[in-house]
Amino acid sequence: MLVVVLDLFGTFVFALSGAMVGVQKRLDLFGVLVLSFAVGAAGGMTRDVLLGAVPPVAISDWRYIVVALGAGLLTFYWWPVIDRMRGTVLIFDGAGLALFAVTGAQKALNAGINPVAAVLLGVLTGVGGGMLRDVLVSEIPTVLRSELYAVAALAGATVVVIGDRLPVPASVAMNAGALLCFGLRVVAIRRGWQLPTPRPPDQSSQDGTAPVEGAEERARRR
Amino acid sequence: MLVVVLDLFGTFVFALSGAMVGVQKRLDLFGVLVLSFAVGAAGGMTRDVLLGAVPPVAISDWRYIVVALGAGLLTFYWWPVIDRMRGTVLIFDGAGLALFAVTGAQKALNAGINPVAAVLLGVLTGVGGGMLRDVLVSEIPTVLRSELYAVAALAGATVVVIGDRLPVPASVAMNAGALLCFGLRVVAIRRGWQLPTPRPPDQSSQDGTAPVEGAEERARRR
Amino acid sequence: MLVVVLDLFGTFVFALSGAMVGVQKRLDLFGVLVLSFAVGAAGGMTRDVLLGAVPPVAISDWRYIVVALGAGLLTFYWWPVIDRMRGTVLIFDGAGLALFAVTGAQKALNAGINPVAAVLLGVLTGVGGGMLRDVLVSEIPTVLRSELYAVAALAGATVVVIGDRLPVPASVAMNAGALLCFGLRVVAIRRGWQLPTPRPPDQSSQDGTAPVEGAEERARRR
Repeated sequence: MLVVVLDLFGTFVFALSGAMVGVQKRLDLFGVLVLSFAVGAAGGMTRDVLLGAVPPVAISDWRYIVVALGAGLLTFYWWPVIDRMRGTVLIFDGAGLALFAVTGAQKALNAGINPVAAVLLGVLTGVGGGMLRDVLVSEIPTVLRSELYAVAALAGATVVVIGDRLPVPASVAMNAGALLCFGLRVVAIRRGWQLPTPRPPDQSSQDGTAPVEGAEERARRR
Repeated sequence: MLVVVLDLFGTFVFALSGAMVGVQKRLDLFGVLVLSFAVGAAGGMTRDVLLGAVPPVAISDWRYIVVALGAGLLTFYWWPVIDRMRGTVLIFDGAGLALFAVTGAQKALNAGINPVAAVLLGVLTGVGGGMLRDVLVSEIPTVLRSELYAVAALAGATVVVIGDRLPVPASVAMNAGALLCFGLRVVAIRRGWQLPTPRPPDQSSQDGTAPVEGAEERARRR
Repeated sequence: MLVVVLDLFGTFVFALSGAMVGVQKRLDLFGVLVLSFAVGAAGGMTRDVLLGAVPPVAISDWRYIVVALGAGLLTFYWWPVIDRMRGTVLIFDGAGLALFAVTGAQKALNAGINPVAAVLLGVLTGVGGGMLRDVLVSEIPTVLRSELYAVAALAGATVVVIGDRLPVPASVAMNAGALLCFGLRVVAIRRGWQLPTPRPPDQSSQDGTAPVEGAEERARRR
């Protein structure tokens, strides 16, 4: 039950992030709705296909469809309101990442696959939606460029899998995992935390102080 | 039987549209053939994977392979002829959309999934091929930008699903659905019909008459 | 057993090629690791999903994960060494293509599908990893642009399928197929072999000598 609620909420926030990108790219109403559904459903569909649970719930359960399209309509018709939250696409994306990472890991555990695979499937489920969104608008996915994106998903999924071995209810582990993942993302975005990048291969940066672009600036530009 | 014929024809027209984009991008022979197959088979493969019908017919049935590669060879070697029909990539794409939307919905019904899911799966099957084509050549997919694209697929799939509840043969519903979807696309392309776009978020359009680009022009440019 | 070893090696070399592109695009550590895993695992995951063998081994078998992430770490931290081999992304990509083409075909045969489908699935498995890599960094996939890429995969997979009908051990056919595929790719890259391209549709090349870009140059630029 909790899995379904979190899953629907994850679908909603990813759908919002997809719709916001759609409006910013000036797509028409149905373009925005398609992008909402695709981004909201991609993570869960990937998870279900990889677990062999077909047809995926995002297709067979009407609530997912309603939630994803609802997020698209909301964004499209209430744009003046949503617009003020424009800087928050990344925040919604972080919430979707957190929710799908934990539900992905939990569903994998429920299906009986091993712990390492469950963590990995959680990460894949989490990053799927945002990856598709960025590929569809011809951009390099956030997960590849952004500070601690995959790490946050990894942390959230790991908490769920460890919790499964401890005498705590699954709901506690899932909430803890989601909060950890989301918290890491938010702090990473606000502080501009960043993992090391290798020496630039193409430019001659003799002084070693390559002008690394601030993470927050990159986030804002998006 | 009818599903197979329409499905093969859908594969052919999507493969043609893929091959035409390939030639326009100056790919070599095998690049064109890969693009033909990928675009022709993507919609049906997505449908089959989501329904759990693996291996997908596009792989296991040699006729799909022959049809898709045939479309690629035709386009490549008869380019002077095909070239004259260059404005028609969108028309072929519309035919593929119509055929896959109705076969996708019908196969979903045959597999016993619920009506809403069948409509959705029809839409996904229809838009899959064109989406992959555009992603592979690094463009934002037509389905996101184009007038009434998803709506047409939705209409076609809905006719099939409603027909399933009425005392009419499936073949009638499928033909009606395909014609409706194709007709909507053709009229939308010719007339430049367009859904509303939201106020542009980035530009200051004070008079409210943002210079919305004509749909036909956009179509031609592609 | 041999399938697993070749499969792991294919995962490793594709993961290397993904990581090298990641470092060249100046991704951070985890971006590189995500790209390594995605590129290393994509071919095999596609194959397993299409064959209905879920969850795919790339997720359920920890060795694939270790191998893919190991390739990423190696590339990231030993960049000065890897850098000197920069021209070799294409070579590693060719090795991955060869290994996945033969293991894809063999696994398909093991699953009992027909020979033509087995060849096709081998090709799809082979081209999947590189395709995803290029799509994720917003480039038109090598398989569409490059000399004899799909042909090489086709040749390798065909050898495996023919070998299955002959009284030779599967290991012999697989090694022969992989060598043929890899050899074709290497020679194609070195010699700049190229398939015919059609007359350019957009430019008026009256003399028929369109300035076709050298394949080797294209390869080097990447």
